[in-house]
Amino acid sequence: METIDRLSYDEQKLLVETLLRQDYAIELISSEINDIESGLKQVDEGFYHQLKLLYDRLRIK
Amino acid sequence: METIDRLSYDEQKLLVETLLRQDYAIELISSEINDIESGLKQVDEGFYHQLKLLYDRLRIK
Repeated sequence: METIDRLSYDEQKLLVETLLRQDYAIELISSEINDIESGLKQVDEGFYHQLKLLYDRLRIK
Repeated sequence: METIDRLSYDEQKLLVETLLRQDYAIELISSEINDIESGLKQVDEGFYHQLKLLYDRLRIK
């Protein structure tokens, strides 16, 4: 799996732009939240909290 | 559709991290390339070229 620090800033920006162009950001975040809430993935509380905040941000368009 | 400049740097980074955790980055980029090559989307040559470079980067893991 690629890690974020192997991607340049421009590459990271291009990924985010494409994610938004494909209108897939909210599905991606909700899928990650579901994986965590169903116990499929373990993350620290802070990461989970950030995901929830971002999900709410993306929902309010 | 959300725009990149309405997202903070941390929110953009969280989107990229989640994209990589979900191992969905390469599907996302190839989907965008397909939309462009099939004429579904018009983009400037530079954006298309960046997508192709990023696709090759993501393929070589």
